[in-house]
Amino acid sequence: HFFDREIVSEMGALGVLGPTIKGYGCAGTTSVGYGLVTRELERVDSSYRSVLSVQSSLVMYPILAYGTPAQRDRFLAKTYTLRGSKTWITNAPVADLCLVWAVCEEDRKVRGFLLERGTPGLSTPKIEGKFSLRASATGMIVMEDVEVPEENLLPNAEGLAGPFGCLTHARYGIAWGALGAAESCLETARQYVLDRNQFGGPLARNQLVQKKLADMVTEIALGLQACLRLGRLKDEGKAAPEMVSMLKRNSCGKALAIAREARDMLGGNGVCDEYHVIRHLMNLEAVNTYEGTHDIHALILGRAITGIQAFAPSKPPAPRG
Amino acid sequence: HFFDREIVSEMGALGVLGPTIKGYGCAGTTSVGYGLVTRELERVDSSYRSVLSVQSSLVMYPILAYGTPAQRDRFLAKTYTLRGSKTWITNAPVADLCLVWAVCEEDRKVRGFLLERGTPGLSTPKIEGKFSLRASATGMIVMEDVEVPEENLLPNAEGLAGPFGCLTHARYGIAWGALGAAESCLETARQYVLDRNQFGGPLARNQLVQKKLADMVTEIALGLQACLRLGRLKDEGKAAPEMVSMLKRNSCGKALAIAREARDMLGGNGVCDEYHVIRHLMNLEAVNTYEGTHDIHALILGRAITGIQAFAPSKPPAPRG
Amino acid sequence: HFFDREIVSEMGALGVLGPTIKGYGCAGTTSVGYGLVTRELERVDSSYRSVLSVQSSLVMYPILAYGTPAQRDRFLAKTYTLRGSKTWITNAPVADLCLVWAVCEEDRKVRGFLLERGTPGLSTPKIEGKFSLRASATGMIVMEDVEVPEENLLPNAEGLAGPFGCLTHARYGIAWGALGAAESCLETARQYVLDRNQFGGPLARNQLVQKKLADMVTEIALGLQACLRLGRLKDEGKAAPEMVSMLKRNSCGKALAIAREARDMLGGNGVCDEYHVIRHLMNLEAVNTYEGTHDIHALILGRAITGIQAFAPSKPPAPRG
Amino acid sequence: HFFDREIVSEMGALGVLGPTIKGYGCAGTTSVGYGLVTRELERVDSSYRSVLSVQSSLVMYPILAYGTPAQRDRFLAKTYTLRGSKTWITNAPVADLCLVWAVCEEDRKVRGFLLERGTPGLSTPKIEGKFSLRASATGMIVMEDVEVPEENLLPNAEGLAGPFGCLTHARYGIAWGALGAAESCLETARQYVLDRNQFGGPLARNQLVQKKLADMVTEIALGLQACLRLGRLKDEGKAAPEMVSMLKRNSCGKALAIAREARDMLGGNGVCDEYHVIRHLMNLEAVNTYEGTHDIHALILGRAITGIQAFAPSKPPAPRG
Repeated sequence: HFFDREIVSEMGALGVLGPTIKGYGCAGTTSVGYGLVTRELERVDSSYRSVLSVQSSLVMYPILAYGTPAQRDRFLAKTYTLRGSKTWITNAPVADLCLVWAVCEEDRKVRGFLLERGTPGLSTPKIEGKFSLRASATGMIVMEDVEVPEENLLPNAEGLAGPFGCLTHARYGIAWGALGAAESCLETARQYVLDRNQFGGPLARNQLVQKKLADMVTEIALGLQACLRLGRLKDEGKAAPEMVSMLKRNSCGKALAIAREARDMLGGNGVCDEYHVIRHLMNLEAVNTYEGTHDIHALILGRAITGIQAFAPSKPPAPRG
Repeated sequence: HFFDREIVSEMGALGVLGPTIKGYGCAGTTSVGYGLVTRELERVDSSYRSVLSVQSSLVMYPILAYGTPAQRDRFLAKTYTLRGSKTWITNAPVADLCLVWAVCEEDRKVRGFLLERGTPGLSTPKIEGKFSLRASATGMIVMEDVEVPEENLLPNAEGLAGPFGCLTHARYGIAWGALGAAESCLETARQYVLDRNQFGGPLARNQLVQKKLADMVTEIALGLQACLRLGRLKDEGKAAPEMVSMLKRNSCGKALAIAREARDMLGGNGVCDEYHVIRHLMNLEAVNTYEGTHDIHALILGRAITGIQAFAPSKPPAPRG
Repeated sequence: HFFDREIVSEMGALGVLGPTIKGYGCAGTTSVGYGLVTRELERVDSSYRSVLSVQSSLVMYPILAYGTPAQRDRFLAKTYTLRGSKTWITNAPVADLCLVWAVCEEDRKVRGFLLERGTPGLSTPKIEGKFSLRASATGMIVMEDVEVPEENLLPNAEGLAGPFGCLTHARYGIAWGALGAAESCLETARQYVLDRNQFGGPLARNQLVQKKLADMVTEIALGLQACLRLGRLKDEGKAAPEMVSMLKRNSCGKALAIAREARDMLGGNGVCDEYHVIRHLMNLEAVNTYEGTHDIHALILGRAITGIQAFAPSKPPAPRG
Repeated sequence: HFFDREIVSEMGALGVLGPTIKGYGCAGTTSVGYGLVTRELERVDSSYRSVLSVQSSLVMYPILAYGTPAQRDRFLAKTYTLRGSKTWITNAPVADLCLVWAVCEEDRKVRGFLLERGTPGLSTPKIEGKFSLRASATGMIVMEDVEVPEENLLPNAEGLAGPFGCLTHARYGIAWGALGAAESCLETARQYVLDRNQFGGPLARNQLVQKKLADMVTEIALGLQACLRLGRLKDEGKAAPEMVSMLKRNSCGKALAIAREARDMLGGNGVCDEYHVIRHLMNLEAVNTYEGTHDIHALILGRAITGIQAFAPSKPPAPRG
């Protein structure tokens, strides 16, 4: 339940923040390489992978994709005033730089802005009482008439394509990462049932236990194979956003189910943090929810399959008579 | 994450500790009345119901069922020496009196002993790092050559029938209680989806949300109806232990599934303790495990259905060739 | 795959057609008595219970509830002309009398009509190629300008309350009946795994088998208990239509799941009709669908829980851009 | 419900019987090519894929793998006498040649024998009353003192490796094929919900419908990706039998679940054979069971994961006291 900023600095020094970016001190890996990094990080804790996802996909990636190298040198031409707030922002309480997508009053278009900590009117209060992702800092971004200079506007993103592109990027990493957490749970549960004796033999000899392990291994194997294929398609420029929705949804849903089974296999010890499974389980509850819930991605896929949007009824429902 | 001893004293003053016991300041309710109490308590938190279950079923009930009124007046005739330990004992760190079932060396029979706090050799260390049942104190009972006088032996219990009778009693209360926690989760989730808007209307108007609510309500309704029937059979002396296994297993498994769905329906807020659902969810992970796991009760039922015991293979399995 | 009309005549002679009706040669049982009859019938085959449901709830019940004793004596005052068709009608190809609910052009109100076989313009073609409910005759009712005399109009039903009341009546019987089919599957599967040996012992000694049996027995026990309670409420005039929706949905969904597990437990023999389980399984696929699908009843319950109707979006969805 | 022998002859002429065999008029494809053939065949009906699997993997493959080219020319040296029977043999009633694995009395070793139709003592009665795989002929092989010449013995297979190799080969094809049947069900269901209107719009606009489609598409995509990878590993000689177990189990279990959802989406029409889904569903019930049930493959995987065999308790269980 402690956010260790040093680890993030180490990750930066290793080049694993924004790992697919070429130059700027980043590693310049393939999408598969990026996926493998998220998987190893989330094997430790979803919080660290969350920090990486937000930093890489929602901040560094849009600056690269939608800003320009000359941006920092440009002369201040205009000042925007931002108002509003958004909650459930990973890293908000600790970040030096926030990237905010906002609607411009004059033309109703969405644009991206870089906000620096310390700017008057900007505050980032922390959310307390989380059971999940406790190793990462989650909070709000509150903007009360924050003045932003023109030079902090991302010039090459206009409309929803900008934030949606970032989200797709983040979800790709989550698809790999969640399976890393699932693998960690599987390994702990497997070792536990081999070590623990009951009725004169290891728990692992029970059919009910072996079936759970078989299900876990199968879903992890299939999920990883699919992520690998998606990573290769991404590197070839052929990955559709719906493919990312499919695997974000599948990996998170299956990883959550695996963590639940693993916790169950540890009996009473399954609720103690020293075995790590309960921590992964709590993290995955959040990971399954953020960047599009399991149900929202079902409807994104449903739209792709049927051509019909079913996110919501089009007008308020009539009261029941 | 705080055990409030005052609440237990209040429960005692109200007569809800050992509520089916007649006399001794207890309420003397029916089994159905007892069930309703556990349900209301667990609607608040499984920890309080756990305190009640252990106190009522595993300590007060055996003293009543297997001890005698004259016991306290009896002259000290013999002294037993207890050795060993047991972990995952609810209330252990705070209890004044422990009831321990132990095998006697001379005749290999199981007997019940009353151990008072402060007896030399007795310690009750607390388990730290629990994500679950945080409002109750869980710990070990460690006995290093604890001397127990004859008068603290329960004279009327010999063999496994004693502890098994207590467990059946405790499980009956859990069957009711777990549904109380599930009802609390349902109520929170229902209110949340009615209050929260998305895409221009309440979350509650979504088919995917309504289906979850329908499933929850159905399982709670069926589960409560079955508990009520079991309570009536219990009061008539017709409740078999397998019936209790069936409903402990069903209530806990279904309540856990309901809490998971409710947490999901709350989105990001579902991991914050202020909405209580995540707390119930974590509690139910433990409640589903203790007093016989979901799988163990399946095998108890399986034995009743088939006449064949399948708890464990009868000899160590051969290594794989 | 043969509809035996003799059995229906026998059922009539026994008074089990329209069993809750008092007088007219009917048995005049309670709702619980009626439920027990459907359960025993469906233990044999869902087709026979379907015949009973349609006959009792959709034909005899509305004549009793919405017609009058004097109806048959009344003089022909007016003639209606019926046009249209409806498919998936149990008994249509063999029935002597059809009860049809139709909208009247002049006042847009729904009314009930009795149509006798042989009336010009009325035909009842049979649906071929069914895998399900093969012992009952299913077909269409096709009406091409069928003239119906005033005396064949049910005078006491106006609006949707008439057909909805009949459907609620039919669903109540299905809720009991489906559990009868499930019990038959359970009994067959239990005996099979006790009789059949593999690796030197009965299949029944396997943990994976015992867990399936435990799940089956639990759901049947809970489902029957709930039906019994509903029957008593019905006899007291306190059963809401949503309660019937809940148990029609629960019994059918759970019975279908039980039949699938039972089929699986029979291995290759599970697909042979001589073991009956595959027949029950196929029947239950239809029973789970008719008189309101599993999903529609979820939305009926969802409406009762939230006050919001979510059967369909209120206007045609926009094409995807 | 008709086995069309002409189709098998056509398959032979096209070279798709024993498609991975090089020479002898066979196609000589890769394992991936073979997988694609099974998938397309089972998209039509599991019966045709079953015919191919048995013919290719259980008869042609062992002759190639364990027989020799010179076998037919060898002089008759010895005659074996076969006794016994085996049920649930695909093609048995129509095959000209049976390949039987039998234990030799003298050395207790398993060997393979070729039995020609018409040999005295050999009969192949058909199993009647199947709801599943009705387009293929299933029966028994009954051997009453059948004399087999030495030349009909497969010389290069000794022990269980022979039949186990054939089964692994057959299961590989099933893993692909079952997904073909699932794809066919998905396509039918998708078209149906787009075409069918309810409450003023297509069924496809319902969230509950779209979620089902999303789940189906996801599992098919993941399953196919895994089969493709296994096929490539097989062609590289790196496929372990446990990998085949994993995908036989996963494909069959998931395809069966998909067919059940598809049937449900078709409502009443889902039980009519003209929509084909019910036929696929019935077929998949058998396919999920044969060549190792879902549970047996779980235990094969469990053994690989834990090193402990849990197929059966090692001695008969004690009666319950």
